[in-house]
Amino acid sequence: MIGPVFDAAALQAYLRTRIPLAAAMQLEVLAADAEAVRIGVPLAPNTNQHGTAFGGSVATLAMLTAWSLLHVRLQAAGIPNQLVIQRGCVEYERPIAGAFSARSSLRAAADWPPFVNGLRRRGKARIAVRVALEYEGATAARFDGEFVALGAGTSPRRST
Amino acid sequence: MIGPVFDAAALQAYLRTRIPLAAAMQLEVLAADAEAVRIGVPLAPNTNQHGTAFGGSVATLAMLTAWSLLHVRLQAAGIPNQLVIQRGCVEYERPIAGAFSARSSLRAAADWPPFVNGLRRRGKARIAVRVALEYEGATAARFDGEFVALGAGTSPRRST
Repeated sequence: MIGPVFDAAALQAYLRTRIPLAAAMQLEVLAADAEAVRIGVPLAPNTNQHGTAFGGSVATLAMLTAWSLLHVRLQAAGIPNQLVIQRGCVEYERPIAGAFSARSSLRAAADWPPFVNGLRRRGKARIAVRVALEYEGATAARFDGEFVALGAGTSPRRST
Repeated sequence: MIGPVFDAAALQAYLRTRIPLAAAMQLEVLAADAEAVRIGVPLAPNTNQHGTAFGGSVATLAMLTAWSLLHVRLQAAGIPNQLVIQRGCVEYERPIAGAFSARSSLRAAADWPPFVNGLRRRGKARIAVRVALEYEGATAARFDGEFVALGAGTSPRRST
């Protein structure tokens, strides 16, 4: 749909090299293409005091997986940009007792064309991303995030 | 109001020892009492790829600061419990370019008595906590979280 598939290994290296918390979480990019990004983490560096998944790790993994989907799609579309998170909400549905992963997708596929058009024309556009956190084949938490993309040449701000 | 002031150093040691991500973030408990908990972090372990504060670190610090307030108050009240986060939302308002901190408070002081009564009577109660993320003396992000406390003897679940 939007050209080349992004390199999962390159995305993983980018995240782990540039974001210390992503390295500390030992995240592994399992898949990265235009439809979805999947990133997994082992439990050990992401536990709480009870040996289950730490809510902060769940939220951070979700946010990174959401950000990565927009990053991958904008890279594939050849649009220089900077992505800024504006809002992120996590609903924790059940405990996670082992390695877990996150899968991001656009809230609606139809959101993409106006998002790209807005970014190209006005240098700024907004879009929503959803993430399902998965443990043992079932959804354990959900994330909804809203991001703003700024066109190249806009002054740097927070990015993920 | 609710007895002894909790030891900030003990809280910091607890968080850093039990939660690997809290150690990776190098969090420092600045204050811990019944009215508010304040926790700070340096920027270096909490940056993104642009050298500003990583949104995942912001969300995680907020969540830990919210959890800590309930933990401190329940400890001071002598009520054995387990705290489970159910929902957490972060609004990112402006970029953070240096060390930052979080300050948690109850959404409403009047929520506390029914929360404690519910926990004592039914072994389960729900409460909302607000957190302001502060950078250079101004609010840079806001967090709203909802937690469930389970009484002692309830089976362990996710805790932060």
